[in-house]
Amino acid sequence: MRLYGYWRSTAAYRVRIALQLKGLSFESQAVDLRAAASAQHRAAYAALNPQHLVPTLVDGDTVIGQSLAIIEYLDERYPQPPLLPGGAVERARARQIALAIGADLHPLNNLRVLNYLENTLGADAAARRAWYHHWLRLGLDACERLVDERGPFALGEAVGLADLCIVPQLYNARRYDFALDACPRLCRIDAACAGLDAFARAVPERQPDAPAGGA
Amino acid sequence: MRLYGYWRSTAAYRVRIALQLKGLSFESQAVDLRAAASAQHRAAYAALNPQHLVPTLVDGDTVIGQSLAIIEYLDERYPQPPLLPGGAVERARARQIALAIGADLHPLNNLRVLNYLENTLGADAAARRAWYHHWLRLGLDACERLVDERGPFALGEAVGLADLCIVPQLYNARRYDFALDACPRLCRIDAACAGLDAFARAVPERQPDAPAGGA
Repeated sequence: MRLYGYWRSTAAYRVRIALQLKGLSFESQAVDLRAAASAQHRAAYAALNPQHLVPTLVDGDTVIGQSLAIIEYLDERYPQPPLLPGGAVERARARQIALAIGADLHPLNNLRVLNYLENTLGADAAARRAWYHHWLRLGLDACERLVDERGPFALGEAVGLADLCIVPQLYNARRYDFALDACPRLCRIDAACAGLDAFARAVPERQPDAPAGGA
Repeated sequence: MRLYGYWRSTAAYRVRIALQLKGLSFESQAVDLRAAASAQHRAAYAALNPQHLVPTLVDGDTVIGQSLAIIEYLDERYPQPPLLPGGAVERARARQIALAIGADLHPLNNLRVLNYLENTLGADAAARRAWYHHWLRLGLDACERLVDERGPFALGEAVGLADLCIVPQLYNARRYDFALDACPRLCRIDAACAGLDAFARAVPERQPDAPAGGA
């Protein structure tokens, strides 16, 4: 199995956790979103992922883009341990949290959007930072209300889909100096996950394409 | 069953099609996103949906937000006819298309984002239109490559999840005068779906909260 990603991509980070929780071995292939990639490089990756986004999973002949589609695929194809609960209602709750982050928060703060704000709309660093924090605030406040009150994980005793969306998003929030005081439940979930090997192995700084200094 | 939505919401439109395809009867409850809603009204809806977004489905004691989570729930709880294919690979393909629209396209062009562009970043009507078309172009071009070459539907013979994301997004694109010449497959899928009663009943203009003139 091969995962095309980028060490600091929030979406690729989710998939890495899923692969680690499943105990599936995979080869990481870095797609540097920041580098001025050659047209040839871009065309080759576009053939795998028409959105030109990371991550993409290649599993034998199967090529899948979109992190949440990849995670659902992994859960159906390699069911143990499950990443989604058993009942339809609990599964909906997990997916609602995953989408509150994966659809309504993260895509707004993605690199291509920040580039558009800067290059096309002329937004300066302060305006881009305010944008970033605005969508983080709305998204994380909603997730704080959606997760289980007691924990330790987002839906209670079992770690899964919602947690592996929350942890990368908090990593991302800290990177952008976003104060997490209003999200004690999410911070507690993040701390519980940090104690699991699968999450520790998936952190950006431990990926092969991370620069030595972590910057 | 009750669906909180808005006649012209792209995300609510997806769920209406799913409910119609399943033959499930439901009551529509309009949440007017444009009206200067009272604080009381907003607080009451926020208790159902912490993101303050539409749609929300209420099915007995179950309350679910996020259109794609709702559609997956409906497919698990009311399996006939299925909205997702049987195999993991085909299911991943359907979800990838759904997320290319539901995560990476539509949330960028949502009302709250357009309001932020106008009110906080001072983007004028031309700049907002360029933004809207930019993300439509990227998202629809990718979907055009992801759908089945032959059709009639996005994944071939069976209508389902990918189609009920494509049709509302094309409705939305037309509303914003976006030329669809580069997306012949998507237009063909849209035309095939238009021939189905379930899609016809779900169109925005036929909803109870649509204004008489359709504007």
